[in-house]
Amino acid sequence: MNGAESLVHTLVKSGVDTCFANPGTSEMHFVAALDRVPGIRCVLGLFEGVVTGAADGYARMADKPAVTLLHCGPGLANGLANLHNARRARSPMVNAVGDQATYHRPLDAPLTADTEGWARPVSCWTRTVTRAADVGRDTAAAVQASMSGARGIASLLLPSDTCWDEGGVVAEPLAPVAPTAADPAALQQAARILRGGEPVLLLIAGRTLRSGPIADAFRIAAATGATVMAPVSNARVERGRGRHAVERIPYPVDSAVKRLAGFKHCILVGAADPVGFFAYPNKPGRMLPPDAGVHVLTRPEEDGPAALAALADLLGAPAAPVTDAAVSRDTPRGQPTSEAVAQAITALLPENSIIVDESVSFGRAFQGGTAGAAPHDWLQLTGGAIGEGLPLATGAAIASPGRRVLSLQADGSGMYTLQALWTQAREKLDVTTVILSNRKYAILLGELAGVGANPGRTALDMMDIGNPDLDWVKMANGMGVEAARAETAEELCDLMRSANGRPGPFVIELMI
Amino acid sequence: MNGAESLVHTLVKSGVDTCFANPGTSEMHFVAALDRVPGIRCVLGLFEGVVTGAADGYARMADKPAVTLLHCGPGLANGLANLHNARRARSPMVNAVGDQATYHRPLDAPLTADTEGWARPVSCWTRTVTRAADVGRDTAAAVQASMSGARGIASLLLPSDTCWDEGGVVAEPLAPVAPTAADPAALQQAARILRGGEPVLLLIAGRTLRSGPIADAFRIAAATGATVMAPVSNARVERGRGRHAVERIPYPVDSAVKRLAGFKHCILVGAADPVGFFAYPNKPGRMLPPDAGVHVLTRPEEDGPAALAALADLLGAPAAPVTDAAVSRDTPRGQPTSEAVAQAITALLPENSIIVDESVSFGRAFQGGTAGAAPHDWLQLTGGAIGEGLPLATGAAIASPGRRVLSLQADGSGMYTLQALWTQAREKLDVTTVILSNRKYAILLGELAGVGANPGRTALDMMDIGNPDLDWVKMANGMGVEAARAETAEELCDLMRSANGRPGPFVIELMI
Repeated sequence: MNGAESLVHTLVKSGVDTCFANPGTSEMHFVAALDRVPGIRCVLGLFEGVVTGAADGYARMADKPAVTLLHCGPGLANGLANLHNARRARSPMVNAVGDQATYHRPLDAPLTADTEGWARPVSCWTRTVTRAADVGRDTAAAVQASMSGARGIASLLLPSDTCWDEGGVVAEPLAPVAPTAADPAALQQAARILRGGEPVLLLIAGRTLRSGPIADAFRIAAATGATVMAPVSNARVERGRGRHAVERIPYPVDSAVKRLAGFKHCILVGAADPVGFFAYPNKPGRMLPPDAGVHVLTRPEEDGPAALAALADLLGAPAAPVTDAAVSRDTPRGQPTSEAVAQAITALLPENSIIVDESVSFGRAFQGGTAGAAPHDWLQLTGGAIGEGLPLATGAAIASPGRRVLSLQADGSGMYTLQALWTQAREKLDVTTVILSNRKYAILLGELAGVGANPGRTALDMMDIGNPDLDWVKMANGMGVEAARAETAEELCDLMRSANGRPGPFVIELMI
Repeated sequence: MNGAESLVHTLVKSGVDTCFANPGTSEMHFVAALDRVPGIRCVLGLFEGVVTGAADGYARMADKPAVTLLHCGPGLANGLANLHNARRARSPMVNAVGDQATYHRPLDAPLTADTEGWARPVSCWTRTVTRAADVGRDTAAAVQASMSGARGIASLLLPSDTCWDEGGVVAEPLAPVAPTAADPAALQQAARILRGGEPVLLLIAGRTLRSGPIADAFRIAAATGATVMAPVSNARVERGRGRHAVERIPYPVDSAVKRLAGFKHCILVGAADPVGFFAYPNKPGRMLPPDAGVHVLTRPEEDGPAALAALADLLGAPAAPVTDAAVSRDTPRGQPTSEAVAQAITALLPENSIIVDESVSFGRAFQGGTAGAAPHDWLQLTGGAIGEGLPLATGAAIASPGRRVLSLQADGSGMYTLQALWTQAREKLDVTTVILSNRKYAILLGELAGVGANPGRTALDMMDIGNPDLDWVKMANGMGVEAARAETAEELCDLMRSANGRPGPFVIELMI
């Protein structure tokens, strides 16, 4: 057995059954092993940013890692931006990066790069294998690392000779390190604060944003008057009709500061002390009032869901039933505003859908306006690196057969990784993409105004992606995905209905 | 004057007049300064791989740096693969990477990443500015570093407060460190070897591949019987009718070893000891015979062109006139083979064109078959990171108004950075792109066969990009570029004539 075969066998034994791939020459033995050893579904991406973003979407829905197959330092580099997002999402993932043979690396061939150096900042675990006999052992360790504690990205660098040499040994799976229990003192402290009668923000994040822990957070809120919120961006939130709606901290600094004014305490459950995405002159970096106390109930590597349940019990909090607000299910008409798109989702979203939100500036009404839609998962861009929406939707669909994915995609960001549409066509994924086509970097126009500049031609040109106009119908068709344009809310609804009613991907270019 | 204004003023003073940009929030003051301070042409790319690849193409043709405008660590990361290629091309370039404000970075906001760590492996110079007063000084140092010695990439990381704070100081340009003269002992040694009567390979690279130094290399060859060759991949070669044709070392290891067998000496002029792109089981990593002597005439940071001239003079070598081989200028007919495409180029290439070659497997006949085409520059992928052709053509066209660019692009690689077509349309660049559409990763099929595997469905699927078929006409149209499909050599020639005769970009999808 060669090293590559031990790699594939060990992955399968460790429960990894999906590979997002863009292989190159140094991975040919890995590819040949995937051929010979059954048990792994291979999904090809035409660019590495698609591969890593899809692996992130997969991990968020499957709650376990896929393996990526990447080619040398530059192949990894092309996937780094979405690995950055995945790191912020705490998505488990195993990168298998083929690289120069151990003895070829000193010759500095053209593709030789600092693969380890590029991998390390996004990885919780990085290792370069040095001989075939270690491939199995290191693969099991990589899977274990990705699923341990707060979870993360394990990057396994495979010099080509470690794959083609004989002597591979299949390794047994290694049990991940489970999240540790919250410190009992932190539990007692949180209970004291919640009983104290001052305004408390209960900020929940990560895997506490599933419906069970959310319900416990709302038990606590109902019993104590605390406010439950989530960070501005989250890997996955279970929401919709019949579930408690968790408010998010607003993105704009002024709005966030205003919303959080008055809280005397903030209890963090897997969340960080909230900060602005960016600094601005004469605005604060932290969003909480400076005099608010910040208390950690659980760190990300601790068991947040169990801590919320324990805290609710400690407080003697009864169940807090959901009372859905009355919501119209009429389809919207006229201008396709942000509110109209939200209403279309509320009216038409299939039960148990997955929404992928990279709507950037236009999506301001989406979350508030869709709390009454059918139950769904909401996936967001966690690291602020645009260009993950289309790959994320692709990976989420791979992980969730039978569930419709609705991908809400700003046009400027969508151009970063539009190649994902081809993978959606190839794999016949049930993804409805709505391209929010305003033909500008609208968020930057707002930011430029915030700078106090009166923008001239040069600046405006750098925000304008409408010269020439992008035609998403043609681009999608060029990658094998059917598509149509909508100019009104009615047309949007007609196309959403039609897309929901048929298998496979569909792109709606919504002119906003 | 704020820091951003001192940045732009200093760039202009230092001779930088072109900016390839994909800005974000942290660069808004830089954008506003580009608006207020005249002298820099801004070219927008819809993905950072386009931005950095275009800056590489610009540098190869302009022989000076452009500045890139990139957004935070992930924006830089998206450009790394083409920065890797640019590093291998020794292209001068200044990256201006906006980042979190100095005092915001410790808060670990979502977009915070290890920007310096990602930049350093591709850069000859990396610096994070820490206050507005230093921006001008550090900018001048960056431009200087990019043009010094062997040339390279200078990465200037700009926390947003260093751009918006007042106190900017415009810096005077700093003279680059000129290439040093070759060691006189190395010149004498090279002359001794060349006079020794044994088979000598004169391997010339980098800026010795312009027509003047090439002529000196051929003087030496004519006087001594040495063979002149170039590495397999080169940043820019001046060639075509009336110029000496420099043979390249073949890409396949077996072919390279066979071609170099029998040489007793190799004299390196700015070149590295030739090695294989990859290692293969039981094949050598170095391409020269193990017993061949390797002699360095000049290292990359030394003055290769002057050393070749001095060496030719030392040998008393007379001028070696070019005798062009008789070449047919008939246009090809029938199947659009590699040879037919080369013949079409020979027949139809406009005088003084620039050819960008990312033809990968299909291009085997291109160089040999086009030596008699009208004089032109030939630009290649230097670092093996696919996905640079379309951006490289874009940047070369920006640097070379009035010259037609012919971009020979494999389809699989072209998908990496297809967004470059939009920039070509926006800037109305005279670029003819020929997409070599075989709908597979053909080079990998060859590599897989080399592994000795009998590929099954999984492996074949990972080499097949034809399910669904990509339609480059639709994709180009969707980005505002006119396009048409050619199935025969005659159709290719008709479309090339038509494209050459009109301004602006055109895409020909050639079914091969």
